[in-house]
Amino acid sequence: MNEFELIARLTKSLPANKNVLVGAGDDCAVLNLGAAENLLLFKTDAVVEGVHFTKATPPEKIGRKALARCLSDIAAMAGTPVAALVTLGLPEKFEPEFIGKIYDGLNMLAKQHSVAIVGGETTTNPGRIFLSIALLGTVARGKQVLRSGARTGDAIFVTGELGGSLAEKHLEFEPRLEEARWLAEHFSIHAMIDLSDGLAGDLRHVLKASGVGAELLKGAIPVSRAAKAGSSRCDDRTAQRAVPARKTPLAAALTDGEDFELLFTVAGSDAVPLLDAWKKQFSKLKLSCIGKIVAGDGVILRDKTGARKLDTHGYVHFEK
Amino acid sequence: MNEFELIARLTKSLPANKNVLVGAGDDCAVLNLGAAENLLLFKTDAVVEGVHFTKATPPEKIGRKALARCLSDIAAMAGTPVAALVTLGLPEKFEPEFIGKIYDGLNMLAKQHSVAIVGGETTTNPGRIFLSIALLGTVARGKQVLRSGARTGDAIFVTGELGGSLAEKHLEFEPRLEEARWLAEHFSIHAMIDLSDGLAGDLRHVLKASGVGAELLKGAIPVSRAAKAGSSRCDDRTAQRAVPARKTPLAAALTDGEDFELLFTVAGSDAVPLLDAWKKQFSKLKLSCIGKIVAGDGVILRDKTGARKLDTHGYVHFEK
Repeated sequence: MNEFELIARLTKSLPANKNVLVGAGDDCAVLNLGAAENLLLFKTDAVVEGVHFTKATPPEKIGRKALARCLSDIAAMAGTPVAALVTLGLPEKFEPEFIGKIYDGLNMLAKQHSVAIVGGETTTNPGRIFLSIALLGTVARGKQVLRSGARTGDAIFVTGELGGSLAEKHLEFEPRLEEARWLAEHFSIHAMIDLSDGLAGDLRHVLKASGVGAELLKGAIPVSRAAKAGSSRCDDRTAQRAVPARKTPLAAALTDGEDFELLFTVAGSDAVPLLDAWKKQFSKLKLSCIGKIVAGDGVILRDKTGARKLDTHGYVHFEK
Repeated sequence: MNEFELIARLTKSLPANKNVLVGAGDDCAVLNLGAAENLLLFKTDAVVEGVHFTKATPPEKIGRKALARCLSDIAAMAGTPVAALVTLGLPEKFEPEFIGKIYDGLNMLAKQHSVAIVGGETTTNPGRIFLSIALLGTVARGKQVLRSGARTGDAIFVTGELGGSLAEKHLEFEPRLEEARWLAEHFSIHAMIDLSDGLAGDLRHVLKASGVGAELLKGAIPVSRAAKAGSSRCDDRTAQRAVPARKTPLAAALTDGEDFELLFTVAGSDAVPLLDAWKKQFSKLKLSCIGKIVAGDGVILRDKTGARKLDTHGYVHFEK
């Protein structure tokens, strides 16, 4: 049983109530708690020593990453983060100075995005640090972007460049909050997700939620310099996410994960106007149209030699 | 450095924003997110294998306890729980059946209190299960009850009976949600807290937040049958919270922790009317007036032989 199978089993029949607009299965839960203008976004995410970082990771970057991952999920709904709680599991012996620096990194990113840290908890977790963030955000009613809205004929976009994130970027990425809000404000974004499991895996989440398929243009996928340099290089050598050495740069871009870029779809007729407007608004951040939504299911990869079904998956926890 | 010293250091200067009415330091954070009638309550709490439960604990009770602890904090603010996210750290090898039963226990309690489970996360936590709940609730504007409102002359009440919780109750307690809302609706509750660290420790949190002291009547403290039977008996023999064998029943009631009863204060003039009304409303749940708020600080314990300053603390994590 892998991570996704376990989650499918655990989330089969969860308790719901009238406040829930979107429950498990999207980047954030969406709740209606009675505010006239806003809906609530609710998300948790954890980083664990030996899994997402190591003893050698600079502590400020551990704290920063933990919050940044949640911020990226708020971005994927086109929302604005508001307040976070920090749950910290600590081994029996720990360095208060190290823990203080985890908070420094976390607090610095929180201030940058006007996120309040409103408490949390410390508890014991023998053997390793476990750091979980619970994040609340808001989104203007009707402006939330789900995974489920992709339609046949949509153009598929990704921000930035993909692959090789474990070399460095996974500790330093910028959550695309401003970009996502701008997109939702100026265009009808049909579906959006943040790339945490890898393009191949996360695109499949969108396709499954929307009941459609996708055709990607191989040459249009923005492969990062780190992916080209060899995705086997990884600062966190003991991290369980370390990737096999012989991935091609394209495979790295498709499957490495932890890119924390945005993938979204818009009507095909919006593609060119969107690209033009984006270049004026965010001249420093690449935006790539990588393909289109098609009828059916799954992902087809097309290059000049033809088209083939892509069977590559993103990173999957707990593979047995 | 113990748990409270670490928390004091980490929460010294946390990022805040205009949405925060109450940040770190109370049972829940209180946020204003623009709803006309309600404020938002936000809380996380974790249970960890080997610390809060063992491999021998029935899995349904693990899930139930994890949610119940958070519900108890919502109760302490006189709030209503709405939606929860579940963060589950799993060892490399786990029994899907066992994990499913953790969710069963959690979901059953959620349904009982109309709490929606709106997602969460599974991740790897080598060596042990780590289960963290993030909970959102609401409270009518102006009806939230903080720790900081106790005043000289207030009567101090506790619900239920205290001590010996680790024998059984810590896995089966009922969060006092209905009782707390009824209290806030019918009386001016000055301060409230749920008893998780033990009466002595939690009362001190109220006193410190309110800038006052307390005088407790030894004979009025409701000592549970489990505390009298010997608080050394503990189903979770490997749990780090196992208590020393030679506590007196009174010491157990003061310091065992995990009672998850309510402690609250009201004006002295409200004490008798409140007790009368309570008996009609909640005939099956004991309510005890255990003393009064006085000027100064700390806790004085009075019996027929006189008064002495209480130096007993509640359970403290990470004592070095």
